[in-house]
Amino acid sequence: MLRYGVIGTGAIGGYYGAKLAHSGQEVHFLLHKDYEYVKKNGLQVDSCDGSFHLSDVNAYSSTQDMPTCDVVFVCLKSVNNHLLAELLPPLLHQDTLVVLIQNGIGLEADVQKMFPRLELAAGLAFICSAKTEPGHINHQCYGYINIGNYSCHNEELMNQLIRDFKKANVDANLVEYHEARWKKAVWNMPFNGMTVALNTRTDLLLKNPSTFKLIKEQMLEVIHTAQQMGVNIPMSFADKMIQNTLDMTPYSPSMKLDYDYHRPMEIYYLYTRPLEEARKHGLQMPKLEMLEAELQFLEAQQNA
Amino acid sequence: MLRYGVIGTGAIGGYYGAKLAHSGQEVHFLLHKDYEYVKKNGLQVDSCDGSFHLSDVNAYSSTQDMPTCDVVFVCLKSVNNHLLAELLPPLLHQDTLVVLIQNGIGLEADVQKMFPRLELAAGLAFICSAKTEPGHINHQCYGYINIGNYSCHNEELMNQLIRDFKKANVDANLVEYHEARWKKAVWNMPFNGMTVALNTRTDLLLKNPSTFKLIKEQMLEVIHTAQQMGVNIPMSFADKMIQNTLDMTPYSPSMKLDYDYHRPMEIYYLYTRPLEEARKHGLQMPKLEMLEAELQFLEAQQNA
Repeated sequence: MLRYGVIGTGAIGGYYGAKLAHSGQEVHFLLHKDYEYVKKNGLQVDSCDGSFHLSDVNAYSSTQDMPTCDVVFVCLKSVNNHLLAELLPPLLHQDTLVVLIQNGIGLEADVQKMFPRLELAAGLAFICSAKTEPGHINHQCYGYINIGNYSCHNEELMNQLIRDFKKANVDANLVEYHEARWKKAVWNMPFNGMTVALNTRTDLLLKNPSTFKLIKEQMLEVIHTAQQMGVNIPMSFADKMIQNTLDMTPYSPSMKLDYDYHRPMEIYYLYTRPLEEARKHGLQMPKLEMLEAELQFLEAQQNA
Repeated sequence: MLRYGVIGTGAIGGYYGAKLAHSGQEVHFLLHKDYEYVKKNGLQVDSCDGSFHLSDVNAYSSTQDMPTCDVVFVCLKSVNNHLLAELLPPLLHQDTLVVLIQNGIGLEADVQKMFPRLELAAGLAFICSAKTEPGHINHQCYGYINIGNYSCHNEELMNQLIRDFKKANVDANLVEYHEARWKKAVWNMPFNGMTVALNTRTDLLLKNPSTFKLIKEQMLEVIHTAQQMGVNIPMSFADKMIQNTLDMTPYSPSMKLDYDYHRPMEIYYLYTRPLEEARKHGLQMPKLEMLEAELQFLEAQQNA
């Protein structure tokens, strides 16, 4: 049996960690503000797939107190990834797999630079979930997770992870790393930023013909860049993402919530980094470049 | 002596018309909401160049009551230009010159379609002016006007207009039509829209390094398009416009005021039309295209 660690017990890490723990896996949770509450009261998951409560949670306020783990989920906001240099080492043994369940492009490359021999994978979570109160996770819909191998040599460990997720009723699949990260960017880059820039929701952006067209053009910028980098995403993937979004209930992406609650936005890994990657290949994504600038302006104004 | 008509007695038409009248010219003003007030109380111009009052104003509430004029200034918001089909005819004699003192690209072409034999010119006003109360115009700074001949065969009339302006202490000059319209667009297209899209001011857009860069890129999109259409604007004109703006006091462009006061924005002639002209020449202005979409979304939301 694998030992799991969760760094960042919020809407995402709290959900997937609790699902595994609820299915009988050993899971250790790092908490920050909610530590005292969860230590005492446990974790409550209100879920469209069936709610449950974990009363006895392995909760920690410091990774120094945690055991080494076989699989560690990193579910921090990516603006805090510099903290991993200190947070991760106590959890690592020789073969620990670290799964970055975070949004953006370039995350694994940067963590790999900090820990050159670390086994790394990407976790792409397709889920509508929010932490509504301390120790309370509200899982509204979806919930599947794709895992893309970045630098893990232990195929059996990857397979075991998938099996454990499935046993916990989480739909999990192994996918090609670059394809998975860029496919997620096709949705993330237009919708996260545009809901902030225009202070609106995904459904309203698609209802207006001008922003419908703009969102699609931004998606095609991402797909075109990915294709030029050798990543296999068809142009028609944009229509598919738009249709999926039309089928969703109106939704505020994580960046919109971050902005509304005056938290730092993940501009770097969601925009700056993929734009840099594109430029390295001689490519431009002009409309997403403009969106990056607008977001940087709005964040600076909020902090002014 | 020429007889002048002003259609749209607001911040612009009110200022230039009042300056001419104050210098002794015969000027006839069309007013809408302010008609009763101005008929009774006259026009007050509070100006950085010296304030003055016109007590006896030729004010009209309908062009049907106005005499034919030698020169007519059209100072409506361009969203109302369809009204010119009815407003203009009573003012026209065989040789009337109509000067469109409005922002945007394609204005003269569209009015020429309505009146194929009309003598037309563009008026490019470089002025910070606002109508603060009925019959009160507040002229904060600048004030010069460039006149670009679009289809006027009467060179002497153009020269007379310039002389009359100069006699009225308005710095006026004849300029090449296309160059003048596109040079104005270099400033107008970035700043009008971006102050609305980011709910901010010109100075703050230039203070932030991300939006400084974006504004400059948008300016270069306009210049590049103009160049490809054979209009002579050097790339360095962007730096000049940025420097001018840095030297200005913080300023809300007309579109920002329109949006803030829930008036229709001049999206069509400021964005849609120049973007169409660019596409006709096989050119893209992707960042201004995105700005157009954002403005269309914001206007639709405001009217929702």
